[in-house]
Amino acid sequence: MSFFSRNKWNPASKHCYVTGGSAGLGLSLAVLLASHGAHVSIVARDTSKLDDALNKLEKARVSEDQIFRSHSFSIGTAEGANAALKAVTDEHGGLTPDAVFMCAGKSTPKFFVEMSEQDLTEGMTDGYWVQAWTAWAVTRKTVEQQRKGKLCFVSSTVGYMSFVGYASYSPGKHALRGLADTLRSELILYDIDVHIFFPTTMFTPGYEEENKTKPKITLKIEEADSGLQPEQAAAGLLKGIQNGHTHITADLITDLFRSSTRGSAPGHNFFYDSLLNGIAMVAVPFWRSSVDSLVRKHRPEHEQHLRERGFPIQDPSK
Amino acid sequence: MSFFSRNKWNPASKHCYVTGGSAGLGLSLAVLLASHGAHVSIVARDTSKLDDALNKLEKARVSEDQIFRSHSFSIGTAEGANAALKAVTDEHGGLTPDAVFMCAGKSTPKFFVEMSEQDLTEGMTDGYWVQAWTAWAVTRKTVEQQRKGKLCFVSSTVGYMSFVGYASYSPGKHALRGLADTLRSELILYDIDVHIFFPTTMFTPGYEEENKTKPKITLKIEEADSGLQPEQAAAGLLKGIQNGHTHITADLITDLFRSSTRGSAPGHNFFYDSLLNGIAMVAVPFWRSSVDSLVRKHRPEHEQHLRERGFPIQDPSK
Repeated sequence: MSFFSRNKWNPASKHCYVTGGSAGLGLSLAVLLASHGAHVSIVARDTSKLDDALNKLEKARVSEDQIFRSHSFSIGTAEGANAALKAVTDEHGGLTPDAVFMCAGKSTPKFFVEMSEQDLTEGMTDGYWVQAWTAWAVTRKTVEQQRKGKLCFVSSTVGYMSFVGYASYSPGKHALRGLADTLRSELILYDIDVHIFFPTTMFTPGYEEENKTKPKITLKIEEADSGLQPEQAAAGLLKGIQNGHTHITADLITDLFRSSTRGSAPGHNFFYDSLLNGIAMVAVPFWRSSVDSLVRKHRPEHEQHLRERGFPIQDPSK
Repeated sequence: MSFFSRNKWNPASKHCYVTGGSAGLGLSLAVLLASHGAHVSIVARDTSKLDDALNKLEKARVSEDQIFRSHSFSIGTAEGANAALKAVTDEHGGLTPDAVFMCAGKSTPKFFVEMSEQDLTEGMTDGYWVQAWTAWAVTRKTVEQQRKGKLCFVSSTVGYMSFVGYASYSPGKHALRGLADTLRSELILYDIDVHIFFPTTMFTPGYEEENKTKPKITLKIEEADSGLQPEQAAAGLLKGIQNGHTHITADLITDLFRSSTRGSAPGHNFFYDSLLNGIAMVAVPFWRSSVDSLVRKHRPEHEQHLRERGFPIQDPSK
């Protein structure tokens, strides 16, 4: 069990399957794993981005034996995730990957009352199913083959907490945490390790995209975030895996939430976690009060915004 | 804001909409609200159970003016939730309810590798969408009418933590928490209060149903749970609402998890929460180790179980 083991996980010669591997965190992680000698399979939708990504993997190659493959699949459905996994395993004698990093996902922040039915269902697909189906497909195959394995989900700081704007995204990122915490316990049955990464803001193409729909008040609340480059986030993820962390964080703010929002997942260092937890108990209420106050002050501007966009506000009916 | 107010919320003469109101927690809560003088609308699917429930509401009546109504709808879709809300508001001059209690939901525990695509999607519908669509429908209408409101979601102890067996349920219950924590912040914009209840095991018809599919190892882990009668849970829920708690709990074990898994949601009493948090920091790792050890010891029996049920386990391929 990795719980008792002090040997750090080494990607060299392991087959690593990275979803969302053509851009952002997924690409940075795929390149990092390649530079550590791993065989890397990436899956994403856009074939030209996948080609560019393969070129980057080649540049990171450290051994002639390394196998790099890319496959274009949409993995937001069970069928898509199964088909992608089949393509990935076919290149490796049908065997399941040694480690799976589920980096696919995206966020489309908006006000809840302006979200359509489609916004909410797509939010759950882009935040949750795009990873859950891969975990399901991989786990079934790995158990069939009686192999060991390693699953790493990618949640978000808003998988620990949430605020205005994230009604379509935070639920899926919390759901991933529920799934990861369940599987950490359940997959002990098969010696499959489960990890989940909670990155803060990352300066990726996806981040630029989400800022296009992000409410002003949400942008304002996030002003103080320092954010990470995807390479920094990927390095933090790999370090967490190597330290055997179940919940992985790569910045202090998210680590404060981790220490005080851990549920039944294992912590890191008891004393460090207790210290952060104590800080969080005092600091989080101050943060919340200041954010609540920002939201409250935003009311007139928000009412104006809704009226301008044709939201059918009636006169107060009291 | 309820945050500053010391006036306890009083259900008398308020219009309360209770989903899942024909059985279990929903029925007990509907009866409790009726006995406090509320107008109560209940929605569920089974019309004969709804009729029985209306009879129970009549017995709890304290004033001739109280309006009790039942409506049969399936509310696992946006369309169903909108239609149910229309029926409920039509009986009250088109006005949105003063408070909405989302008690609909169910759990179907199984081993992850034995879950079908349908098990997983239905788990999310029964755990999450059956409440999320109602919250969405109600919030939009309430903002249109510029009325105040009160939303109360019902999650579960496995919305705070999770273990073997709950891969289709815990994600939805975590997702509800992500939604509730988002909306607690966002709906400050409209003076709509948001609460979320985390009940432990409740001895309801739904509990008897879920035990039929529950893996033995999950039953064993839950052996020590004392559980609540639905009337106790309903009383705990109402007390939490009246105390202005965002996260509501009705038993000590779940309260331990609440205090140490609060994310950015407001706590209860700082000193009490700090005490519980300290206990949880020490106690939860012991609980986890013992449960992990139970799961590990369950391996041979589990492999036998999978083989008997025809799960295609291959010989170890190393």
